[in-house]
Amino acid sequence: MFLMNCWYVAAWSHELSSATVSRKLLNEPILLYRTTQGTPIAFLDRCPHRLVPLSAGTRVGDTIRCGYHGMVFAPDGRCQHIPGQDQIPDTARVVTYPVHEQYGLIWIWMGQNDLANRELIPAIPWASLDGWTASPGYTHIAADYRLLTDNLLDLSHETYIHGSTIGNSPEETIAAYPVKVSVDDGRVVSARRDMPNIAPPPMFAMLNQSSARIDRWQTAIWIAPSLNITDGGVRPARDESGETSSARVLHLLTPESDRSTHYFWAFCRNFRQQDDKLTEAITQAHRRTFDEDKHMLELQQLSLEQTGLAVPKVALRVDEAPLRARRILNQLIKHEAASPNYVLPKISRIFQTEPALHGEKANVKA
Amino acid sequence: MFLMNCWYVAAWSHELSSATVSRKLLNEPILLYRTTQGTPIAFLDRCPHRLVPLSAGTRVGDTIRCGYHGMVFAPDGRCQHIPGQDQIPDTARVVTYPVHEQYGLIWIWMGQNDLANRELIPAIPWASLDGWTASPGYTHIAADYRLLTDNLLDLSHETYIHGSTIGNSPEETIAAYPVKVSVDDGRVVSARRDMPNIAPPPMFAMLNQSSARIDRWQTAIWIAPSLNITDGGVRPARDESGETSSARVLHLLTPESDRSTHYFWAFCRNFRQQDDKLTEAITQAHRRTFDEDKHMLELQQLSLEQTGLAVPKVALRVDEAPLRARRILNQLIKHEAASPNYVLPKISRIFQTEPALHGEKANVKA
Amino acid sequence: MFLMNCWYVAAWSHELSSATVSRKLLNEPILLYRTTQGTPIAFLDRCPHRLVPLSAGTRVGDTIRCGYHGMVFAPDGRCQHIPGQDQIPDTARVVTYPVHEQYGLIWIWMGQNDLANRELIPAIPWASLDGWTASPGYTHIAADYRLLTDNLLDLSHETYIHGSTIGNSPEETIAAYPVKVSVDDGRVVSARRDMPNIAPPPMFAMLNQSSARIDRWQTAIWIAPSLNITDGGVRPARDESGETSSARVLHLLTPESDRSTHYFWAFCRNFRQQDDKLTEAITQAHRRTFDEDKHMLELQQLSLEQTGLAVPKVALRVDEAPLRARRILNQLIKHEAASPNYVLPKISRIFQTEPALHGEKANVKA
Repeated sequence: MFLMNCWYVAAWSHELSSATVSRKLLNEPILLYRTTQGTPIAFLDRCPHRLVPLSAGTRVGDTIRCGYHGMVFAPDGRCQHIPGQDQIPDTARVVTYPVHEQYGLIWIWMGQNDLANRELIPAIPWASLDGWTASPGYTHIAADYRLLTDNLLDLSHETYIHGSTIGNSPEETIAAYPVKVSVDDGRVVSARRDMPNIAPPPMFAMLNQSSARIDRWQTAIWIAPSLNITDGGVRPARDESGETSSARVLHLLTPESDRSTHYFWAFCRNFRQQDDKLTEAITQAHRRTFDEDKHMLELQQLSLEQTGLAVPKVALRVDEAPLRARRILNQLIKHEAASPNYVLPKISRIFQTEPALHGEKANVKA
Repeated sequence: MFLMNCWYVAAWSHELSSATVSRKLLNEPILLYRTTQGTPIAFLDRCPHRLVPLSAGTRVGDTIRCGYHGMVFAPDGRCQHIPGQDQIPDTARVVTYPVHEQYGLIWIWMGQNDLANRELIPAIPWASLDGWTASPGYTHIAADYRLLTDNLLDLSHETYIHGSTIGNSPEETIAAYPVKVSVDDGRVVSARRDMPNIAPPPMFAMLNQSSARIDRWQTAIWIAPSLNITDGGVRPARDESGETSSARVLHLLTPESDRSTHYFWAFCRNFRQQDDKLTEAITQAHRRTFDEDKHMLELQQLSLEQTGLAVPKVALRVDEAPLRARRILNQLIKHEAASPNYVLPKISRIFQTEPALHGEKANVKA
Repeated sequence: MFLMNCWYVAAWSHELSSATVSRKLLNEPILLYRTTQGTPIAFLDRCPHRLVPLSAGTRVGDTIRCGYHGMVFAPDGRCQHIPGQDQIPDTARVVTYPVHEQYGLIWIWMGQNDLANRELIPAIPWASLDGWTASPGYTHIAADYRLLTDNLLDLSHETYIHGSTIGNSPEETIAAYPVKVSVDDGRVVSARRDMPNIAPPPMFAMLNQSSARIDRWQTAIWIAPSLNITDGGVRPARDESGETSSARVLHLLTPESDRSTHYFWAFCRNFRQQDDKLTEAITQAHRRTFDEDKHMLELQQLSLEQTGLAVPKVALRVDEAPLRARRILNQLIKHEAASPNYVLPKISRIFQTEPALHGEKANVKA
């Protein structure tokens, strides 16, 4: 159920200080640490001798010493020292994974090691880009990562789940605005919605310090298998020359297990960049917002497990983008299973167009 | 393991106020609510779209709005509104169950909908009958409902489990009094025991404000598949003209799952009816008493699961009524499985005779 | 995975006072109690009637009364009394196990009853022997007992797990001293290590009230299937006439389940015997020490369960004794499965030699 030959986010860069990080990724226990030079390293968190977690051991210089019998492993996974013997057998080696640090994130390749290519990390620099200020965070979700992809590709749920932060009221539900769905490179799904002259949701009113109506637009973007960006903006309603505030929100998902997900997120904005209080307020608001998603997705996961029904009985118009992404993901996983050396090519572009306002309200009986 | 074509208790009437109630019944998640007219409604607690629990949504007038994508469902289960589209597909419908309010209880029919007939609800009005005062309650039991039926049909356990409330001491165990077991309508099992000139158990002494010896009688009644009544009374010992105090205790069991049970109970008395302090004291005493059963039954459930033995090795005389009820229940479940349209006929009577004292102590070596 | 026809420790003698003890042993729930004469009794903790735990009942004189229906069982397991009937069927009998009290311990035989022979209890009297003072304790380990055997037969882990009590530092790891492994009676594995002129570990410095270097020796002994002794001593370094302090540490393992272990232990010393504060200090230090093992072994158990790999990929020199013990245990279990009447013969001796200092430091590149 996982695509293997691709890069996943293992951690935020700032998590890897002098401490090690132990984390399950795609059902494998992984130990992350940095060498004294700062290079990130990923081990299978199992000593090859007695299979205890190496995270119960000690970092000694650039090496990890197992906490049970004292075997010492170098960054390349080879055993450097075995207490009580000179000979070090070839099998005394811990499994390692390619890792690379980019955009303030530690990326890991869990598929075939020799296929790892840093050029394939999608260009999503906003959390570390000049001209943008990030409010980053992490949320653990006890649900299949694909349920969170469904959630992120159809933002009509904002009205019903996030009424106190980023959602409009049911009377002005954003589901009523038509969505334009497109697919690029066979693996990037975009769902754009324009909402001219709409009331600002509570968090937007807070950000703009005004409850005046706005022109709002947003594009939900999914990059197979599990990176997402919400690219959005607002402007005073019907004022094309008004000041535009833009945000690119990263939602980077890494499956922890078949039924749980690491959700790394960052709200990146290009306005009031030096306002640290605002940065913190956005972080708090998004933590609360994503906890609302967490609550619903974990209920959904339990329902699916109890009911044993993976396929819903009803598809709605708002499901178009999630369903297209699911189909693509299923095909990619199937393809990889048949051709284990297959690697997704580099994507050519993430954004189709620069933000612009064109669209109209759908003719919907409320 | 459940009989389907019959009425089970879903809730006490007073539980369904303006709030909804979400509860698992016979392994199905059920959402209960009332319309503004007061009519009780039961939904499968799953939105047909993405299968999230509707109990995570909102009640809006007589309808339920799903908390994820805002679909609105009417009391008949049909979808009334889908945000973002005009067309409502036929499959956009939530599963509903027949429900009926009677005797202060909400009854639900989990079998074939078209077979539901309100006339088949057994006449057990005491919790809401004039001339009787109820001390009602609810206890969750993490055990198969059939273990609780066993418990309720053999009251000799009162001596050993309930010594501090309704049980006599081991020296004067009620097991020593013979039981008369009878079966009516092929599905009502009654087990009557007369205990002339016996010491009053602690709760009886409290109720009667006297520790003088009493004539006591009780009939344990089981109505397939899982309704029970304990019909009992006491009178000053050897004083046929003395004042009789009667109680009819309802024990209404609804399987929650294969291994847990909703236990709705009410101690209904026909004496000192206006004494609210007494009503509360009885409620407290029974909550404690049924918690004692809960403790033992949950240990028994764990033992059966760990030991893998469903069939005990020894049958005692006190098991006669429980064993007859089990046989009847097994046959009914088997019969329904073979004939899915089969519905148990209405029962003709619950009580065989009005309470009377006739009986004698068994000749038992203690 | 268990050897059945042998004695296991069920409890410390002092645990069985007037109270009963309920404990799972080899996956069976066992109820232990003493008669008024002091004789220990072991029942299967299940009433044969409805299978509830007898430990939820009451001890009445020499008998146990079930807490559900009041059946009374005598020490031989036979039912003595059934409330409500005179006839006591032959099947009304609780399963019993041979038990014997020796060396301050209650021993139980979980295999075929008729094969139980008290002479087969290995002679390990130190916890109750004159001339020795015991610091006894108990630790529950959520891990397969064989992982704890591995641990106890290779004490090189002291350096890495127990640095704050009984371990030397990594610079002077005891793994660097060669081990002499021998097997007696086909079922006693001994692993001896001599450490002349070594720094005293923290607990030794505390015991000897000196941080002067010592001559240290220890033999890890395993008696199939799961009794262990660490026989050790220290003496001022290079002073053959110096005072020797000896300890025999009992580590008596009884499987609780496939994945958990009762660990009865006692540090028995032949020096400063009357010093009660020292006795208590040793108890506390060992409780902490064995909690360190517990932590590592429980991580190891979880790793093995998650990874599904029972066989490590690398064997080290320090594994010699554990691997030999595993092979012997596997053969014994296999043999017993093929010949269910087979009983291990009595062992002829536990210690090969009296303690002496002969050995040299291995030539190891650190």
